[in-house]
Amino acid sequence: MAEGITVVAERINGTRKRVGAALESRDAELIKKEARAQAEAGATYIDVNAGVAGTDEVEGLLWLVETVQGEIDTPLCLDSANPKALAAALPKVKGSVIVNSINGDPERIEGILPLVAEHDAGVVALTMEESRMPETVADRMKIAKVLAGECQKAGVPMSRVYFDPCVLAASTSPGQPTAVLETVREIRKTWPDTHVISGLSNISFGLPKRSLLNCTYVPMMVACGADAFILDPTDAAMRATLAAVGVLSGADDYGMEYIGAVRDGAVN
Amino acid sequence: MAEGITVVAERINGTRKRVGAALESRDAELIKKEARAQAEAGATYIDVNAGVAGTDEVEGLLWLVETVQGEIDTPLCLDSANPKALAAALPKVKGSVIVNSINGDPERIEGILPLVAEHDAGVVALTMEESRMPETVADRMKIAKVLAGECQKAGVPMSRVYFDPCVLAASTSPGQPTAVLETVREIRKTWPDTHVISGLSNISFGLPKRSLLNCTYVPMMVACGADAFILDPTDAAMRATLAAVGVLSGADDYGMEYIGAVRDGAVN
Repeated sequence: MAEGITVVAERINGTRKRVGAALESRDAELIKKEARAQAEAGATYIDVNAGVAGTDEVEGLLWLVETVQGEIDTPLCLDSANPKALAAALPKVKGSVIVNSINGDPERIEGILPLVAEHDAGVVALTMEESRMPETVADRMKIAKVLAGECQKAGVPMSRVYFDPCVLAASTSPGQPTAVLETVREIRKTWPDTHVISGLSNISFGLPKRSLLNCTYVPMMVACGADAFILDPTDAAMRATLAAVGVLSGADDYGMEYIGAVRDGAVN
Repeated sequence: MAEGITVVAERINGTRKRVGAALESRDAELIKKEARAQAEAGATYIDVNAGVAGTDEVEGLLWLVETVQGEIDTPLCLDSANPKALAAALPKVKGSVIVNSINGDPERIEGILPLVAEHDAGVVALTMEESRMPETVADRMKIAKVLAGECQKAGVPMSRVYFDPCVLAASTSPGQPTAVLETVREIRKTWPDTHVISGLSNISFGLPKRSLLNCTYVPMMVACGADAFILDPTDAAMRATLAAVGVLSGADDYGMEYIGAVRDGAVN
């Protein structure tokens, strides 16, 4: 746990109303503002998602890549299940990049993994079938093993794979928070040099004070071996949690970064 | 992790200035107020510590037991290293009780464990030598194994032992937060039916925003297998964290207790 946490910043997502509208009208200022705010809040990668119904995802993703890269140097995470959009955007990306995502769907694996291999990209691997969400640890590990095999066949090393154990809402699925933690431990044990990522905000769906639940689940996942999250780094409570996790997971020796963040008002 | 978290409430401790003064002057009202506040905040056990220099600990502990039990029904945790004080107080205690604590000191083991066995008490077992704090996981596990052996010899089952992995300050000992988490996992693996307890506030000693660090470390420890904490349950942030941990550790199915606590204003 001595490495720092990778933060994939989630705000530039076409399924969000304001971002979708900005994509349609090619409002570069809003996108740049979102990119800069997330970079300044400590994002390791900026996720870009151009999935807006009725628009051309290939053109949209290319525009997002150019717009964000014109503003900041933070690496990108290309959030698309569309091989055409990824094939067009990957050659335009500067530096390190993650593709988000593959799952158990064979067509998606076949369309996306060769691009990941060709561009030395990282890849988010969701432990779910095409459309069915997993229920048990065994369900998730079964798909994780298939995906690990496919990555190895395609020449994508495990050190570039980010397994996402697929968090479900605690309010409707009481066994799920612990099943996910157990899956994180199993993945970490099975492939010590891989990554475990989570877009975890589903955990609190349907419950009050969602930020409290999200901020409590992050340290639990890190303690089990998660090292990356897809989240909003501009959320003050989450930023404070991540700074504290740095101290407590051994990434921030003597709490020097934490003390600096408190002094600068970044943690308050 | 489906059991709830045991909360040992720490405020009635003679080493705290106001409580020490109340002990000396036999100010029952202050002690009763502290007891009630902690019980209402969700304490599972109320810790009572009569260790004030220059006073009689035997008489002091007896007075605390009578005073607290006269006010509330929450079980007690007798916080003393003095076999005479424990021998006097244990027969007066109603219901379930924990003795806090033994460590690697042979005299303390010999003086206290027979009393624990005789009174069917739980016992906190600190993984430290007489005075030297442990540094590594191996240090801690070595002492834990000695203590487990002594408990078995004395007839105290592992299900009544609360191992405390001895948290040290992250600000001065950077490897310690992860060493403690690893120790928790090892204890849980070695003795699945034992308890792991922590008086964890040392973790944040010397750093700013201590509550944030304490509240972030609790979920990490729970994810590794801790099921009991010695803390101040009247601290609002910690109470919120514990309510969230209940949902996320599978103890609070569907978040029903959490929703109730938010509705009642107990989590805010």
